[in-house]
Amino acid sequence: MSWAQALFRPHHVAVYGSMGEGKIGRVLIDQLLAGGFPDVIAVNPKGAADEGVRAVSSLAELPAGGPPVDLVVVASPAATVANVLEDAGQAGVKAAIIVTAGFAEAGDSEAERKLLRIASQFDLRLVGPNCAGIVNTKHNLFPTLETRPPSGDVAFVSQSGALGGAVLSWAEEQGIGFSKFVSYGNGVDLTDIDFLDALREDEETRVAALYLETVSDGRRFMDAARRLAAAKPLIVIKSGRSESGSRATVSHTGSMAGADAVFDAALRQCGAIRVDGIEAMFDLCRGFTSLPPVRGPRLAIVTNSGGPGVLAADAAERCALDVRPPSGALRRRLEDRLPPFCAFDNPFDLTVQGGEDDYRDVLIDVLDEYDAALAINVNVPYLDSAPLARGIVDAARATGKPIAASFMAGRPAEAALPVLRVGGVPNFATGERAVRVLAWMCERERVVERLRRSPGWMAADESSSAQLSWDRTPLEPEAMDWLEDLAFPILEHRWVRSAEEAVEAARSFGRPVAMKVVSPSIVHKSDVGGVITGVAGAEEAAAAFDRLHVIGGSDFAGVLVSPMIGDAVEVLVGVSHDPQFGPVVACGLGGIYTEALDDLALRVAPIDADEALSMIDELRGAAILRGLRGARRDAHALAELIARVSDLPGRFPEIAELDLNPVFLLKSGCAIADVRLVRRDPATEEQERTPT
Amino acid sequence: MSWAQALFRPHHVAVYGSMGEGKIGRVLIDQLLAGGFPDVIAVNPKGAADEGVRAVSSLAELPAGGPPVDLVVVASPAATVANVLEDAGQAGVKAAIIVTAGFAEAGDSEAERKLLRIASQFDLRLVGPNCAGIVNTKHNLFPTLETRPPSGDVAFVSQSGALGGAVLSWAEEQGIGFSKFVSYGNGVDLTDIDFLDALREDEETRVAALYLETVSDGRRFMDAARRLAAAKPLIVIKSGRSESGSRATVSHTGSMAGADAVFDAALRQCGAIRVDGIEAMFDLCRGFTSLPPVRGPRLAIVTNSGGPGVLAADAAERCALDVRPPSGALRRRLEDRLPPFCAFDNPFDLTVQGGEDDYRDVLIDVLDEYDAALAINVNVPYLDSAPLARGIVDAARATGKPIAASFMAGRPAEAALPVLRVGGVPNFATGERAVRVLAWMCERERVVERLRRSPGWMAADESSSAQLSWDRTPLEPEAMDWLEDLAFPILEHRWVRSAEEAVEAARSFGRPVAMKVVSPSIVHKSDVGGVITGVAGAEEAAAAFDRLHVIGGSDFAGVLVSPMIGDAVEVLVGVSHDPQFGPVVACGLGGIYTEALDDLALRVAPIDADEALSMIDELRGAAILRGLRGARRDAHALAELIARVSDLPGRFPEIAELDLNPVFLLKSGCAIADVRLVRRDPATEEQERTPT
Repeated sequence: MSWAQALFRPHHVAVYGSMGEGKIGRVLIDQLLAGGFPDVIAVNPKGAADEGVRAVSSLAELPAGGPPVDLVVVASPAATVANVLEDAGQAGVKAAIIVTAGFAEAGDSEAERKLLRIASQFDLRLVGPNCAGIVNTKHNLFPTLETRPPSGDVAFVSQSGALGGAVLSWAEEQGIGFSKFVSYGNGVDLTDIDFLDALREDEETRVAALYLETVSDGRRFMDAARRLAAAKPLIVIKSGRSESGSRATVSHTGSMAGADAVFDAALRQCGAIRVDGIEAMFDLCRGFTSLPPVRGPRLAIVTNSGGPGVLAADAAERCALDVRPPSGALRRRLEDRLPPFCAFDNPFDLTVQGGEDDYRDVLIDVLDEYDAALAINVNVPYLDSAPLARGIVDAARATGKPIAASFMAGRPAEAALPVLRVGGVPNFATGERAVRVLAWMCERERVVERLRRSPGWMAADESSSAQLSWDRTPLEPEAMDWLEDLAFPILEHRWVRSAEEAVEAARSFGRPVAMKVVSPSIVHKSDVGGVITGVAGAEEAAAAFDRLHVIGGSDFAGVLVSPMIGDAVEVLVGVSHDPQFGPVVACGLGGIYTEALDDLALRVAPIDADEALSMIDELRGAAILRGLRGARRDAHALAELIARVSDLPGRFPEIAELDLNPVFLLKSGCAIADVRLVRRDPATEEQERTPT
Repeated sequence: MSWAQALFRPHHVAVYGSMGEGKIGRVLIDQLLAGGFPDVIAVNPKGAADEGVRAVSSLAELPAGGPPVDLVVVASPAATVANVLEDAGQAGVKAAIIVTAGFAEAGDSEAERKLLRIASQFDLRLVGPNCAGIVNTKHNLFPTLETRPPSGDVAFVSQSGALGGAVLSWAEEQGIGFSKFVSYGNGVDLTDIDFLDALREDEETRVAALYLETVSDGRRFMDAARRLAAAKPLIVIKSGRSESGSRATVSHTGSMAGADAVFDAALRQCGAIRVDGIEAMFDLCRGFTSLPPVRGPRLAIVTNSGGPGVLAADAAERCALDVRPPSGALRRRLEDRLPPFCAFDNPFDLTVQGGEDDYRDVLIDVLDEYDAALAINVNVPYLDSAPLARGIVDAARATGKPIAASFMAGRPAEAALPVLRVGGVPNFATGERAVRVLAWMCERERVVERLRRSPGWMAADESSSAQLSWDRTPLEPEAMDWLEDLAFPILEHRWVRSAEEAVEAARSFGRPVAMKVVSPSIVHKSDVGGVITGVAGAEEAAAAFDRLHVIGGSDFAGVLVSPMIGDAVEVLVGVSHDPQFGPVVACGLGGIYTEALDDLALRVAPIDADEALSMIDELRGAAILRGLRGARRDAHALAELIARVSDLPGRFPEIAELDLNPVFLLKSGCAIADVRLVRRDPATEEQERTPT
């Protein structure tokens, strides 16, 4: 029996804890019984229990050969939990839910590690400690202190017990049913990753939702999340956005890639849908569990009032749905059917005279050439809304295509709601919320296709890992030579140590040059005047060298001379190291733009060129990198470069940060004009590997 | 008696229309009576009515000297409405609500104009036709077909009757009460502007909300909206965002300033709060009607569960609230009071053990140094939520500061809701929605201060209007000279007609130059290779001239030569003409950035330099214009320039579009390097003045 079976489909359940009135042990047993679980055993020193509940002081007292206890729920005091696990382990129990608090969250991590040591002796898997329990509605299993939710197709895994409880309490009002619920508390053993794997295989779960504060292991989380997302929608609420930007690192790229931005990129790479809060999660769950797939972005809005129709159309365009007008043929068909005062441009406005037949027939007609529809009913008090709902339900059945409803509002629309519910048409408080769901569902189809094509990132090939040839941070020209040896496109340049050499280098290029100071102690060269551009002629070159010499000070290590590039866009490409996800690759507009516009695309590395192209397109400045107003830009060469750079930290594990800034993006190809490489500091590395 | 008094506080009301079962006239009378209006008169050809209702076939039949009929409601067939207005006008009625449809919305604008002509003879003001009526809960007045809403402090004016009706139906569930409601339908007489003025003076209205599709007159709307917003919060839902960008004009600036973007800017200048939909409107109304002002951005989040607290904190940072940690002194005070496992960093986590006293005392303590608080309760089923609500209500009373609540969720929290309601603490479904309201309320305080300081835009001084000296669109150098005469900062330049002059000009500047073709038929010079930069030396200058000569073709009118500017940021400043709001001023990053980043700040012109500075700060690229990483930029000089440019269309009414692109923003001052001026085409102007 797997841990998942023991946890979610146990034969027998035992509860360790006091059976006194109002005690948690007793509440848990009451919940289990009230939820319909047939056989619960109470375990406590006194062997006490209510009538009808078997009670023992140790599982060892149970007669041999009886049906096994697969799952125990632990609510006894913290100091007793270790003994409880021994007792359960010896009895062959395979899963334990530890509700008891007072472990790592109260500063006692050692006690928690002890539990894990005991459990692993017996192959006993742990949920918790300090958790709110689990639910499997499909097995009438409610070992939790929280509200028993309605049964349904959504599984919800929550790192926060209280938030999980709120979700369960709210579910009925929101029209959501759950297959499974898990609160894993401190997660000493089973965590996010284990439950993602379990939910992927769970045939009773059609949609998985996750509330996260941290992940136990970034890369393994991504693997598990991607596998799940390839099989069913994965909705994630991740709190802690406001912590972003709190990390400080040496390099430019690193300092801009906040922890939350990396998390965001990782979730996108896995195909998970990140939402901002519980309301959006509920909306999405209702869409995914009740609607067929949204195969494309073309949305028809059928309404009986112009205003709400236009508001929904506005919202649809904001989330990239396509509210195009109908074809001529469809328009003529609708004009034949409907009175002339209706609007046929999408939104299709049936006016207040639109009835059951109108909603049904028009929806069926428009879904011939649209991928999804939103049916809005602004209910006037003197009209019966139920027939309109029937028309919509009929259209959904007849077409097999996704139709969301927004029946507004309050009491006049109430009669329609049961009709929609029974008919499987989800109703949303506003058209804006409905279209957001349809847009996410449409995006989901694209994501599934992408996940089938490529994983979004690749496992690093550790067997080929090589060493850097420096035992220190190299100077920029050294790093450039190294990349050139690796066949990266490097801008032609000369590293000079005297004014004479500078003059000679400038002359050799035959056009104005840029000159940059080289010094191990200067990171941001332009901030200290260490970059001089447009240097033309011998006199200027010599003067520029002298100025840079002064700026370089005692650490002066020469000057880098390279030709000015006229028709190019400056781009930044870099890799840095995230404590949770490891190597991360970034790109953005170079110069001051990335920072000024807060516009950086991120991926967990390494990635392929396709994924790199999607990074480029994600930037606000994408049009500039794709070539705007007749200017050709070789975005594919840039994507190729980004992919190759993303591969470097895997091949050279000593790389902590690598900034190519600027890279000149040309009409054809691109050229790296400056390189900064930071080696990993073994001390830092150690720190990162220590779990926090 | 003013029209507003007649409309909202009539002595008597007469209803024109059939009294047959289910007919609209009858429904209106039933509504009026059911709503508690004491005396209603039915007017119809048969003089028929229900028992207890006075009926006549004309108001002339009413005995002279009785209390006057101030308001009539018209539901008779469209063809009869003109006669009805004659009848009402002769009886001295001052306001008419025309519910009847079949006028401009059905293509018959002439019939509508006829109504207006008749009404103006009698000084009779019209609401409608094709409207859903009005409500004044404070006068028990419900001449409408829609749901009678609860009484309260919010006035709602809706251009869409159906949407207005939905709002009224939804109000009770949303906990919103209304003072007034107006649906003005086709708005043949009274419109948005009139009702804004009326609501400003209405002492029974504390918050005004508006649903708009179009405005009748952009400038007058802005005046009325600003006056109202200076007195009380004005919330606007404006549909039709997706129409933005549909307008095509000649110039660069104009083509980027979509109609909706101008509307958005105008609303911001007036101090109105624009929201995306009805839910946000309801949330805001609840905040403004139940909370004291939010005087600053510092928000304390007090919660009994970490997760929802962090989600709310994330949302707060997204909308620019300040979720800072407490001072050392406050922290120590809280540590003395609370158990050690609580969190004191903001969010303040009382844990599930937080009780009535904890909520009260901690809220009182933190509001010593925060401007507002959000109190979150994630309710576990075995805890009573009502005491927590009492603690929060007590803190709100004790501090007089704004506290919003989010009690989650469903049944376990139900006991608390009446306590919060009676205590005047608004409860929001999620913490995210609550903080959005607090953020808007905080913004509102800043807006009020700004409105007191400056109107945001200025009325053009029409008396000083001057004529341009060309009867055609001037060439760029001509427009530059004209601006130079007006003392605008123009980059030094020479307009040359031969290669020899070009060489001489290039030599005279003593550094590399930029050369641009001048031709009346070339608008986007860089798109056709008409701009050559970095030209150095006689040979290059001559060659560049020849190339530009070829590009200029038969319309070639010379070449503009100006020195290359090294250390500058390119900016675009322009004015264009919006059909609804007239002259509009725009600024953005120059070159390809404004277009590529879709980053343009707009204002209805003219504006002062303060307002221009706020435009600069609104841009995504603001940091670049403010000077980034040690680069000094004279943003104040740019603001001054924008303000002066915004003044030009008022002084020179012939200006249709004026683009300064690029303007070089320097360390000190700025310099206009190119100017394109488009004169107004009288034909276009005519078209714009015709109401659509």
